Amino acid sequence: MQNGKEHRVSMFDCAIIGTGPGGLSAALNLKTYQKDFVWFGSKTLSDKVTKAEKITNYPGFPEIGGGELFERFQAHMVSAGLEITEKTVTSVMHSGGHFMVLADNELYEAKTLILAMGVMAAKLMDGEEDLLGKGISYCATCDGMLYKGKKIAVVCNAPRFEHEVAYLAELASEVLYFPSFESGMNRENVTVLRDVPVAVHGDQRVTSITLRSGATKEVDGVFCLRNAIAPTKLIPELQVENGHIVVDRQMATNLPGCFAAGDCTGRPYQYTKAVGEGNVAAHSVIAYLSSQN
Amino acid sequence: MQNGKEHRVSMFDCAIIGTGPGGLSAALNLKTYQKDFVWFGSKTLSDKVTKAEKITNYPGFPEIGGGELFERFQAHMVSAGLEITEKTVTSVMHSGGHFMVLADNELYEAKTLILAMGVMAAKLMDGEEDLLGKGISYCATCDGMLYKGKKIAVVCNAPRFEHEVAYLAELASEVLYFPSFESGMNRENVTVLRDVPVAVHGDQRVTSITLRSGATKEVDGVFCLRNAIAPTKLIPELQVENGHIVVDRQMATNLPGCFAAGDCTGRPYQYTKAVGEGNVAAHSVIAYLSSQN
Repeated sequence: MQNGKEHRVSMFDCAIIGTGPGGLSAALNLKTYQKDFVWFGSKTLSDKVTKAEKITNYPGFPEIGGGELFERFQAHMVSAGLEITEKTVTSVMHSGGHFMVLADNELYEAKTLILAMGVMAAKLMDGEEDLLGKGISYCATCDGMLYKGKKIAVVCNAPRFEHEVAYLAELASEVLYFPSFESGMNRENVTVLRDVPVAVHGDQRVTSITLRSGATKEVDGVFCLRNAIAPTKLIPELQVENGHIVVDRQMATNLPGCFAAGDCTGRPYQYTKAVGEGNVAAHSVIAYLSSQN
Repeated sequence: MQNGKEHRVSMFDCAIIGTGPGGLSAALNLKTYQKDFVWFGSKTLSDKVTKAEKITNYPGFPEIGGGELFERFQAHMVSAGLEITEKTVTSVMHSGGHFMVLADNELYEAKTLILAMGVMAAKLMDGEEDLLGKGISYCATCDGMLYKGKKIAVVCNAPRFEHEVAYLAELASEVLYFPSFESGMNRENVTVLRDVPVAVHGDQRVTSITLRSGATKEVDGVFCLRNAIAPTKLIPELQVENGHIVVDRQMATNLPGCFAAGDCTGRPYQYTKAVGEGNVAAHSVIAYLSSQN
């Protein structure tokens, strides 16, 4: 919503998913070309960038810390007048030559799409794919109400999702909480566990999880609050190889109008590669839009 | 010659051709991995970058002038301990699984190659390709002596080549000089012309040129001192489409061990794309070298 207008009923030129270096680079270029786009992600941009200790190969910054590069990126974002829509995209439908993006239960329509959501650092749990929508959820806001008074597990890999854990704890009767970081969560009905769920079980619906330690816990549902989402979880029709989105030299995926950039397209996982690909993806979107007019 | 040793008889891990953003990005990464490489280009890095008025889409630098970005690049280069070999590469031979690079008449051997020499801004003259080596030369140092006491034309598109023009003027009896910029050249036997040679004529050897104005001038040879050199001029076996080197997602060309990055691989002609591709090309070189061991 880069122009601050009411867009809920209109069609965006583009939706960018992801606020890492690839997404930022794409957004800067679409803004220059005055495209009307919505940019989903986090105001903290990218946890990966912020946490990097020392970056020596981003041309122009000899030896920069991740925190400082993040500040530089954020200053650039502000100076360019870019706005981030802090919503979690949970699915994308591709129909009628455009894209319907579902983010925290709100629907956005866009003519083109740039996927820049990074790679899954965590392995999926066994059974996670089969039970998606049958007790496995990626969105507290969307599905929290379904677990009112029930017992749930929550897997969380970034502190910025902890407010969603708190929200879930207000609804569920009991929460088994599996943060991948040091958490200060302290609520009566939340048990913080240092273990890791490795498998999820159930026939029609989730009934239990197995932990790395071998223990089994009965639960009615599992929320996975992760930085990245597997590409085919978002768009099942997307062509993926070894977990990476297949793109050509123009960063085009197999879906017309859908482009990708950054770690989600494969190695090397490098900021410099990501910004380069974001630039190319944006230029491809611009060319695609003018070919459609 | 990144380690300052005597390398004339040894084999480099890699030769990088070009000191624009793509070449710099590649060099930074090869240096990090302690590869032994030679980097051909200019200490002024890239005239294109330096001349750019305002760059707004290089993430991390909101609104930076080309001159300032050049200074940033140069500071990074110095801090990383990179050295540039200021020689003009005139041809590359690919034989026995490695590359022989001819630069100002000196021979360098390398296991891999990264081509990052930009794109030709200027159109070739009609007849230029046919008469290459028959009166057309790209290297004053290499071929200047052949034109002692003769009449030559010199096409020059960057001030940094003017010392070569001066060198040629000391050998030739008469020089018709066609700079694409404001030149202060003032020598008795040099005529500075604001016209542009569009065709070169001759059967066995160059005999004359035609200018854009329609005038014809008799000359014994033509020197073309340009920032970039057409890829197939360097390596005839290289696969090229519409003047751009064909590469895959790993920046690999059709020749094993030969990679490319930056404007020479195609549009968009953007610094951000170039640094991204240089990063990927370097990682591909590193992977290629370890696959050969």
